Amino acid sequence: MLLGAIEAGGTKFVCATGAENGQVSDRISIPTTTPVETMTAVDDYFTTHPVDAIGIGSFGPIGVNPDDPKYGYITTTPKPGWGDFDFLGHLKSQFNIPLYWTTDVNEAAYGESMIGIAKDVPNSIYMTIGTGVGAGVISQNHIFNGRTHTELGHMRLNRLPGDDFKSNCPYHDICLEGLAAGPAVGKRTGKAGKDIPVDDPVWPIITDYIAQACVNLTVAFAPDKIILNGGVINQRQLFPMIREKFAAYLNGYEEVPPLDDYIVPAGLGNNSGIAGGLLLAQAALKNA
Amino acid sequence: MLLGAIEAGGTKFVCATGAENGQVSDRISIPTTTPVETMTAVDDYFTTHPVDAIGIGSFGPIGVNPDDPKYGYITTTPKPGWGDFDFLGHLKSQFNIPLYWTTDVNEAAYGESMIGIAKDVPNSIYMTIGTGVGAGVISQNHIFNGRTHTELGHMRLNRLPGDDFKSNCPYHDICLEGLAAGPAVGKRTGKAGKDIPVDDPVWPIITDYIAQACVNLTVAFAPDKIILNGGVINQRQLFPMIREKFAAYLNGYEEVPPLDDYIVPAGLGNNSGIAGGLLLAQAALKNA
Repeated sequence: MLLGAIEAGGTKFVCATGAENGQVSDRISIPTTTPVETMTAVDDYFTTHPVDAIGIGSFGPIGVNPDDPKYGYITTTPKPGWGDFDFLGHLKSQFNIPLYWTTDVNEAAYGESMIGIAKDVPNSIYMTIGTGVGAGVISQNHIFNGRTHTELGHMRLNRLPGDDFKSNCPYHDICLEGLAAGPAVGKRTGKAGKDIPVDDPVWPIITDYIAQACVNLTVAFAPDKIILNGGVINQRQLFPMIREKFAAYLNGYEEVPPLDDYIVPAGLGNNSGIAGGLLLAQAALKNA
Repeated sequence: MLLGAIEAGGTKFVCATGAENGQVSDRISIPTTTPVETMTAVDDYFTTHPVDAIGIGSFGPIGVNPDDPKYGYITTTPKPGWGDFDFLGHLKSQFNIPLYWTTDVNEAAYGESMIGIAKDVPNSIYMTIGTGVGAGVISQNHIFNGRTHTELGHMRLNRLPGDDFKSNCPYHDICLEGLAAGPAVGKRTGKAGKDIPVDDPVWPIITDYIAQACVNLTVAFAPDKIILNGGVINQRQLFPMIREKFAAYLNGYEEVPPLDDYIVPAGLGNNSGIAGGLLLAQAALKNA
């Protein structure tokens, strides 16, 4: 059995083939240009690399509820050409195999939950803090969705006294993404996150917002683990700062796992998504 | 078949009997004093009113995870005598019938979800804003728990500029409960919520925090409905204020149901909990 995975991001699509254990046997990267151009390359890949099922995680917002007329679509993205694109419908028209459709962060969360750092616990959250902020929630080993998928990058937090940075979110004067995602870090400092030394005064601000977000994830979902990934926190030295601020904010109100095991980097690095896609392909095959 | 329900609150316990449709046939109220005294009255009630199963919703925090050694316990409550009380174990020792054990707010959420205002949708949240703030989340018609139950009263929000009220939460400088629960409203105004006119300047503050909480519930759980109950919002006039602020904060970022159907008062009034308990008793009986 050969499985396929797509991790569809706003900058690039990764397509891969691999096995039931999430191990990748082949992969390519395709620039995200227009749906016609990008999807033609996707179709070509899986035509020349035939698989038994494909797991797809897409940038969003997307329709994830099978009852929704926009199920399988990328819906309201500002990305030119991709708004109201019937992604799943396109793939169905090309490949008569089981397909699993979810968000990019749900896909990555599933990968970490099944074979990554959260493989031993039933409830975990994968949050990426990069160009944007998104999170996937795994509840009792399943992807959590409500009426639609979560939009946890847009949770409100307490704006730090003295932080007069204008939110970078076009919708919200205050939200995690607007205050602490990569572009916000860039505008605050004039530099990319990876070039900012760990003792830069921007980090106490950014890690504070991330810590507040971890408090809100904790009281909302009571996960066993919160996995943080993405460009902004590629610097591992930020984790102790986040854990310390988290502990101060939670202030012993409820018991949580030891923080070194609770707020953690991804176990699969940049492979969380593709590994999750392969495992979701397997799930689709089982349910077919 | 006769079903039983317990709604165990910090001030009083309500015990009731009723039918599979959630209709109550008999009920009593018992003051919450010591575990021995209160539980003796509970035992007496269900001895004289025999039932086939009991659904229990308790004040917390409680152990809700069957793998937890403290499953069935009220755990760290400051309420004298009730810390580490094995509530479920006590009932099991008295009654050899199926029992369903959850939090008071999960019980109420379940009642509203099954026969109340959320009966037509699979995903809803019941949040009570009274002496404390708590919420129960229903996901795909089931009670949502993680490692433990939610503690949504303690989510962090943005402290309003100029609001220098000292949080009433002993743990958190900023949280929904500390800034907007009944005791906070009381300290802010010197009056009980029900005696404060709707044009009092405290309401724009309280409804703002509640609206922020609704935003965070929306981006976290994507529910079909948010049900607000409890002493602080017994005044129905507050709902339009909450909806208006919610709309301003969400700012069109994602589509939500029409707000009059989305942020709503409880459909069962003060019976959400007991109705939920009866329906959970029925669920326990089915799974037995």
